[in-house]
Amino acid sequence: MDADNLVKILEAYKNSKASLEEVLEQIRLQEAEELEFACVDHGRMARCGIPEVILGQGKTADQILSIARQMAKRQSPILATRLSPEQAKLLAAEFPQAQYNELARVVKIGQAAEPASGGRVACISAGTSDLPVAEEAVETASFLGAQVEKFYDVGVAGIHRLMRHMGVIKSADVAIVVAGMEGALASVVGGLLDKPVIGVPTSVGYGSSLGGLAALMGMLNSCAANVCVVNIDNGFGAGVLSAMISRLAAKRSV
Amino acid sequence: MDADNLVKILEAYKNSKASLEEVLEQIRLQEAEELEFACVDHGRMARCGIPEVILGQGKTADQILSIARQMAKRQSPILATRLSPEQAKLLAAEFPQAQYNELARVVKIGQAAEPASGGRVACISAGTSDLPVAEEAVETASFLGAQVEKFYDVGVAGIHRLMRHMGVIKSADVAIVVAGMEGALASVVGGLLDKPVIGVPTSVGYGSSLGGLAALMGMLNSCAANVCVVNIDNGFGAGVLSAMISRLAAKRSV
Amino acid sequence: MDADNLVKILEAYKNSKASLEEVLEQIRLQEAEELEFACVDHGRMARCGIPEVILGQGKTADQILSIARQMAKRQSPILATRLSPEQAKLLAAEFPQAQYNELARVVKIGQAAEPASGGRVACISAGTSDLPVAEEAVETASFLGAQVEKFYDVGVAGIHRLMRHMGVIKSADVAIVVAGMEGALASVVGGLLDKPVIGVPTSVGYGSSLGGLAALMGMLNSCAANVCVVNIDNGFGAGVLSAMISRLAAKRSV
Amino acid sequence: MDADNLVKILEAYKNSKASLEEVLEQIRLQEAEELEFACVDHGRMARCGIPEVILGQGKTADQILSIARQMAKRQSPILATRLSPEQAKLLAAEFPQAQYNELARVVKIGQAAEPASGGRVACISAGTSDLPVAEEAVETASFLGAQVEKFYDVGVAGIHRLMRHMGVIKSADVAIVVAGMEGALASVVGGLLDKPVIGVPTSVGYGSSLGGLAALMGMLNSCAANVCVVNIDNGFGAGVLSAMISRLAAKRSV
Amino acid sequence: MDADNLVKILEAYKNSKASLEEVLEQIRLQEAEELEFACVDHGRMARCGIPEVILGQGKTADQILSIARQMAKRQSPILATRLSPEQAKLLAAEFPQAQYNELARVVKIGQAAEPASGGRVACISAGTSDLPVAEEAVETASFLGAQVEKFYDVGVAGIHRLMRHMGVIKSADVAIVVAGMEGALASVVGGLLDKPVIGVPTSVGYGSSLGGLAALMGMLNSCAANVCVVNIDNGFGAGVLSAMISRLAAKRSV
Amino acid sequence: MDADNLVKILEAYKNSKASLEEVLEQIRLQEAEELEFACVDHGRMARCGIPEVILGQGKTADQILSIARQMAKRQSPILATRLSPEQAKLLAAEFPQAQYNELARVVKIGQAAEPASGGRVACISAGTSDLPVAEEAVETASFLGAQVEKFYDVGVAGIHRLMRHMGVIKSADVAIVVAGMEGALASVVGGLLDKPVIGVPTSVGYGSSLGGLAALMGMLNSCAANVCVVNIDNGFGAGVLSAMISRLAAKRSV
Amino acid sequence: MDADNLVKILEAYKNSKASLEEVLEQIRLQEAEELEFACVDHGRMARCGIPEVILGQGKTADQILSIARQMAKRQSPILATRLSPEQAKLLAAEFPQAQYNELARVVKIGQAAEPASGGRVACISAGTSDLPVAEEAVETASFLGAQVEKFYDVGVAGIHRLMRHMGVIKSADVAIVVAGMEGALASVVGGLLDKPVIGVPTSVGYGSSLGGLAALMGMLNSCAANVCVVNIDNGFGAGVLSAMISRLAAKRSV
Amino acid sequence: MDADNLVKILEAYKNSKASLEEVLEQIRLQEAEELEFACVDHGRMARCGIPEVILGQGKTADQILSIARQMAKRQSPILATRLSPEQAKLLAAEFPQAQYNELARVVKIGQAAEPASGGRVACISAGTSDLPVAEEAVETASFLGAQVEKFYDVGVAGIHRLMRHMGVIKSADVAIVVAGMEGALASVVGGLLDKPVIGVPTSVGYGSSLGGLAALMGMLNSCAANVCVVNIDNGFGAGVLSAMISRLAAKRSV
Repeated sequence: MDADNLVKILEAYKNSKASLEEVLEQIRLQEAEELEFACVDHGRMARCGIPEVILGQGKTADQILSIARQMAKRQSPILATRLSPEQAKLLAAEFPQAQYNELARVVKIGQAAEPASGGRVACISAGTSDLPVAEEAVETASFLGAQVEKFYDVGVAGIHRLMRHMGVIKSADVAIVVAGMEGALASVVGGLLDKPVIGVPTSVGYGSSLGGLAALMGMLNSCAANVCVVNIDNGFGAGVLSAMISRLAAKRSV
Repeated sequence: MDADNLVKILEAYKNSKASLEEVLEQIRLQEAEELEFACVDHGRMARCGIPEVILGQGKTADQILSIARQMAKRQSPILATRLSPEQAKLLAAEFPQAQYNELARVVKIGQAAEPASGGRVACISAGTSDLPVAEEAVETASFLGAQVEKFYDVGVAGIHRLMRHMGVIKSADVAIVVAGMEGALASVVGGLLDKPVIGVPTSVGYGSSLGGLAALMGMLNSCAANVCVVNIDNGFGAGVLSAMISRLAAKRSV
Repeated sequence: MDADNLVKILEAYKNSKASLEEVLEQIRLQEAEELEFACVDHGRMARCGIPEVILGQGKTADQILSIARQMAKRQSPILATRLSPEQAKLLAAEFPQAQYNELARVVKIGQAAEPASGGRVACISAGTSDLPVAEEAVETASFLGAQVEKFYDVGVAGIHRLMRHMGVIKSADVAIVVAGMEGALASVVGGLLDKPVIGVPTSVGYGSSLGGLAALMGMLNSCAANVCVVNIDNGFGAGVLSAMISRLAAKRSV
Repeated sequence: MDADNLVKILEAYKNSKASLEEVLEQIRLQEAEELEFACVDHGRMARCGIPEVILGQGKTADQILSIARQMAKRQSPILATRLSPEQAKLLAAEFPQAQYNELARVVKIGQAAEPASGGRVACISAGTSDLPVAEEAVETASFLGAQVEKFYDVGVAGIHRLMRHMGVIKSADVAIVVAGMEGALASVVGGLLDKPVIGVPTSVGYGSSLGGLAALMGMLNSCAANVCVVNIDNGFGAGVLSAMISRLAAKRSV
Repeated sequence: MDADNLVKILEAYKNSKASLEEVLEQIRLQEAEELEFACVDHGRMARCGIPEVILGQGKTADQILSIARQMAKRQSPILATRLSPEQAKLLAAEFPQAQYNELARVVKIGQAAEPASGGRVACISAGTSDLPVAEEAVETASFLGAQVEKFYDVGVAGIHRLMRHMGVIKSADVAIVVAGMEGALASVVGGLLDKPVIGVPTSVGYGSSLGGLAALMGMLNSCAANVCVVNIDNGFGAGVLSAMISRLAAKRSV
Repeated sequence: MDADNLVKILEAYKNSKASLEEVLEQIRLQEAEELEFACVDHGRMARCGIPEVILGQGKTADQILSIARQMAKRQSPILATRLSPEQAKLLAAEFPQAQYNELARVVKIGQAAEPASGGRVACISAGTSDLPVAEEAVETASFLGAQVEKFYDVGVAGIHRLMRHMGVIKSADVAIVVAGMEGALASVVGGLLDKPVIGVPTSVGYGSSLGGLAALMGMLNSCAANVCVVNIDNGFGAGVLSAMISRLAAKRSV
Repeated sequence: MDADNLVKILEAYKNSKASLEEVLEQIRLQEAEELEFACVDHGRMARCGIPEVILGQGKTADQILSIARQMAKRQSPILATRLSPEQAKLLAAEFPQAQYNELARVVKIGQAAEPASGGRVACISAGTSDLPVAEEAVETASFLGAQVEKFYDVGVAGIHRLMRHMGVIKSADVAIVVAGMEGALASVVGGLLDKPVIGVPTSVGYGSSLGGLAALMGMLNSCAANVCVVNIDNGFGAGVLSAMISRLAAKRSV
Repeated sequence: MDADNLVKILEAYKNSKASLEEVLEQIRLQEAEELEFACVDHGRMARCGIPEVILGQGKTADQILSIARQMAKRQSPILATRLSPEQAKLLAAEFPQAQYNELARVVKIGQAAEPASGGRVACISAGTSDLPVAEEAVETASFLGAQVEKFYDVGVAGIHRLMRHMGVIKSADVAIVVAGMEGALASVVGGLLDKPVIGVPTSVGYGSSLGGLAALMGMLNSCAANVCVVNIDNGFGAGVLSAMISRLAAKRSV
């Protein structure tokens, strides 16, 4: 409950300006209302550590613009994901400071946290076709303050490409592994690191890849114990998780 | 490569005690051998942050004892999981300092890290039948140094049970959510926290629960962006991941 | 058999105006015919409590118009679902009294039961993308006489939004829960109510949501015992069921 | 919040026997505690319309006895489901008034509502092998006060067996249809009724029945709009739902 | 082997017009060639009782025309299935005697057997959307000489519609049941007949119908023992099978 | 309706020995009763061409004996399938004329039709492990009067074994193909015959055979148009279907 | 056809010791018989390069002994797989020269090809639990003459273990990779070799490994183009294939 | 490591032109760099026996051209697969020596190995719709030096078509079998050959073919032990594997 409101009600009661029934009713109403109030004011940012994010997919350009304007009024930083080029252009036209990453299909306006205020995230991807998902993760994590380094096109079909980067990768606080087909890269990275590894299976593949289910099942059954998994193509989720984890590490140096 | 060995070879070569061919051969051999050597000596602990763990499932009691003896010789702390009562008894008989958690099916001998040297982990489970998996996660995480608090039997069929603990849960560095059936608890917890949430679907359920696949799919499709998932009944993996994440946080207070 | 017809035949036989063979033949014919006759005259409405409904999907605009005209001749109220904007416009052009809900993709002409003659239905949905299915349920239920209240965008990623409405929701006779992704909202609502809850999984989601199967499996495995489920995106079915259930309650106040 | 407690706190405050800080603290504590308290005292019964139920599956006989004793102390009626014969015998030995339905694997001690205080439920099953699930539904519904009539062994392989009972079935408030194999009985009954139909797919079948998935999918895709579905073999859920629905009807005659 | 050819070779050998080696070679060649020859000349018709059929799906109009011309040269009757309107028009333009069933997507030129020379087939379908598949079955069966009677739109949501036709249906030699959604119609018909029933699941449905898999599984698990099943939407296969079965019956009256 | 009964009622009415009300009531009762009566007396045999069959699976020996005694009283021939050796022994002990096929797990007492009164059935199986299912089909078909010839162990791994029997197989009226693993035998036989082929996938196999699903899917997708399919391991269904089909052929020679 | 027989028949005909009809009949009979004869005499060995193999699974010890005796009479080498310890003991008791590999569940009597007459096969396995399948492959390949080297327990959770053996592995003609869980080892090995790689997914794993389906799908979707796959746990198939491939290489050095 | 570089470093050290620290650093850098260097220069060709291949699917024409130019500069032969006609035309316009196989969707520029320098590959396909996949396999295998013979349209629905080619097929070193629907052709060919058989399931089919999964499962469960499988529609993989296997055989004749 909102402390100020509660005090006022109680004082009104003590001063006999409110009956017992009125006070009971007020307290009951507040139980619900202040939750909502908190939500609107500080909202998702305070509760979950991330501002609300606009998922472009399945929305009209008008709907996206309208939400962005509301957020802008509240000085909220804005992250919009899965935007079509048309949606992105309209958003960019209205907000000159907008940054558009076409590959990631993401528009950012402002930052949810100081750039590089968080810890270090290594984003590793297997093939060129996995890049849109990897970039979505990178944009999300850096929007939330993480320092992200990219290691792209290092799939297990040529594992030496990964090996030469392992030294740098080991110094990160958390690794994201983005891979389609059989998703074996997550297990290989997991077996070489002593940090959490977030596997992002992608829908890259054909035939029995079943739209990414093969990679998903592969990562879930990883023989490396430090691999966890998010939904297929869910670069956004991996970005959020990696930023949250890296924050824990970042605070230690303060 | 092992630095000391390398120096010796190079000096022998400079002092003409070894021919160019011999040096080249030695360097080549070392490329492979020192990897292996590192593995045996400091091994998994150094590379992955966790010592080797004995998975009891599918092993004979003799095999388990034999591996445990080898580890004991090297003064390695021991974690053995998925033990039958018989396997556990034999292990405990030989190692008097062994601690056996029957519900978790886990035996621990020593600690891989100072007790409570890591950060804070909240382990939340939905129903009584999920306890073996939850306890496996708890034992693993605390073996690796995490401070774990348990919140059991707080499933969404009576969500007020969860709500009253949320204040304490919010102060943890990472949450584990163990749930079978539809696994909705992971989404509810994820929506209330600004920390990473590790979902562990369990095989608890019947009919179309498909041995835990329903809970797994539920958690993977969570509407909360900070939920990642490990394999069905994989309490061990959740324990490892949560300990790794909490370590990042623990170091900050040093 | 139709009692009047049967009496006439028997009297004709007694009065020897019909032979035994003729009577036997007549009775046999009636066995089939009066069933059919009942169907055509009072038909589905009498038998199943709902008039026939026009499913727009997979029909040409001509077919839809033709069926609607036949029903209109019989003074039957008309509900047409899953209409494209083009189908809806043609229907509206011919029947000026038609009401078109674009979001629900539904056209209604008349009412199958007095408005609000039934009981109270609460229609709860998780996210904006679930609205077309939720609205189809609402239109169907109100067409059949139910009093429907809507509670939209109250998904578990921000559970406080649901909580503040629970008081009103509890006063309904039956609740519909429309949710995609993991479908956890059905379990949460089910755990808070002492009324039947009809879960409608939607195809909203991506990756391993498998076109709504994840939400479907989640709802089927709900830990709340008062949750039943209809097919993915089946707002129409949920509307029919909720209206039927609420009728039972409505009659008590007469 | 508990009204009595709240009044006491407020009066203590008004009478200056408690400081403002103490009152605020008390109200905060109550927010959580009275929820829990309500749960224990009136609990599930008040909130969800059904008392807690003991699911025998996966519990030891000792655990079942212990829970039953706790409930008995609180004068709570007891329903225990999925009991092995051994579990049932122990329960019956301790509670002489216990009623054991071996086929249903259910023990009942007392009633959660006056016998036949609810509405009328028709429980229809396809084959002999479906009886344990059907009986579980019957026992649950009647424990919750419903008047249940049984129509067993009326599967569609001989549809005339069902037809002759349709007159009686039509007079019920709600129908439960329990069927394995292809589950077609739910569609047939649904097409003949103007009441809600709860389909319970069973794991009866072989080969491609996939443990009841074929029947489940059949019922979910029913061409009858008034069919909803619960999990495979979930007689308990169907019993709860049917009792809740029939209660709505029962109240009208008061 | 072709008897005439064989006799010629042997006589040439006896008359010493061919060496032993030549005879051996000839016999070996014939083993393969006459099989092939039989195939081309009388071919599939002789071996399998049906001429080759042109599956339009996945073929260009040119390919279809080219095959049809080859068959026409050999005076073969032609059945072309799964034709687009464009493919059908081109075929009809070249062969004036072609008969085009637009709903069935089938063109026929000639007959593979005398019209109505076979036995009686009842083709029963559940809903309007199942008609293309039902018509494909009807066209195929009648092309092969069967006498087909149609019973359309008699799904189990209104089972009385089926019942009144059962008398006529019972007099057929074999029944085809075409149904989507849950496919329950096959079980109902199977339970009422003493003849083989060929179930054709269709891809009609949505959500968990999984493109016809729900209907397929329903029919495979039918509680009626006289139901067999062909692939989803496979009206052609059902037509072939029913014609073959009905031929057995037709011959008896000769 | 039973013609004799109907005549009596009508005559009683004409002779004024029964009132109009009594006649109406009688006719209504008969609608239901004579269906039921027909079922009990001539029953399933008359309606479906096969007597009721006792499925041993899931029944106690007592239940089986009890049903068999009832059938024996009515002079009904008895077929009991899926019997355990114990169930079979008890049945054989009571009915000395019982014939027990241990491999098929079938007991027969009497014949439902004159031996070899039906047409010719070829039962073809791929491997030794498929024999129980093949024998169940053979016993069922011959119980129903078919003349069955067996062609066992002729799987496609050695296709010449099948080829040498094709001459005889071609002379049958219908073929049953029993095969597990990939089920390719059904396609091969289908491509060589101009008769209906009933595919029976078996659960023989391992790994990705998925308990017979691989064979089932193989047969459903057969490139031969004359192959239909029954459920996995459903030898009984194949026996019934083949007997029904062969009857059509058998009658022609009369 | 058997050339000698054919010559005799033709000569008899030329010498008029046989009529034309008799010759035609003989040739027809031979078409079938010599195929069968070839099968029995040189049989599978000649046709497929491997003798018949006894699959113990699903056979009684008597059946196994009986087949082994028949083979022994023909001096055929014997390979029996998937034997229980009991089956193996009985076989060994009768054939003193039998070699029993308990881990592989295989008994061998003699050799199908000279030991090490074939090429070089590398058999690589991921974990200890995969050993029974790996050993079955090794025994089968060496029975067929291959030179097999084993590289066990080199899974990707510690990829350096594999790396140090790659030099030797690269010199083999073909590699077998046996792995459960996510099966990533096949991709890693495939990416490092210029030889064919046969992936054998195993049923080792739990939860969403689905009895080996996760590993199977992983290997099928491998990003390495030289990986092919056999059924889950099919060590026998991998052994046969690797021996066949290595034979091609072995012959070159002759 | 690159031998020349290594020698230079060591000599510089011996001659005291480099300090110990410098040598150690150089060796460490080389560990990574020379791997990478090898990759760029001789690269994939040396390591895996095949040059890098351009997968057109999912790439823009510009990307394809850019990669092709880079490869052309290095005199690398080029294979580009899954090209759209537009992509192919652009490639052909720039490289006059390009050969475009429209059916296979493949462009080749040069050869990765001397034409016909490898062994003999038989490419067998079931139906006309399987040709694009079969041709992709053929082009890939011949690009890598194999001698490929084609046997098209020989599916099991008319098995005599296959039989007459078996003599020639048996003389190949390895067979590729390309088939959709039930994929039975792989088993039939496997049962007739003593060589490895590579099964390529195709997505040809409908209904329960599930996009090629039915054929894939069929081939994986083949009763012939010499059949291995690649992913659905993976003609490229089959081409690579068959070329690798046939090389083993080809070298023997040198």
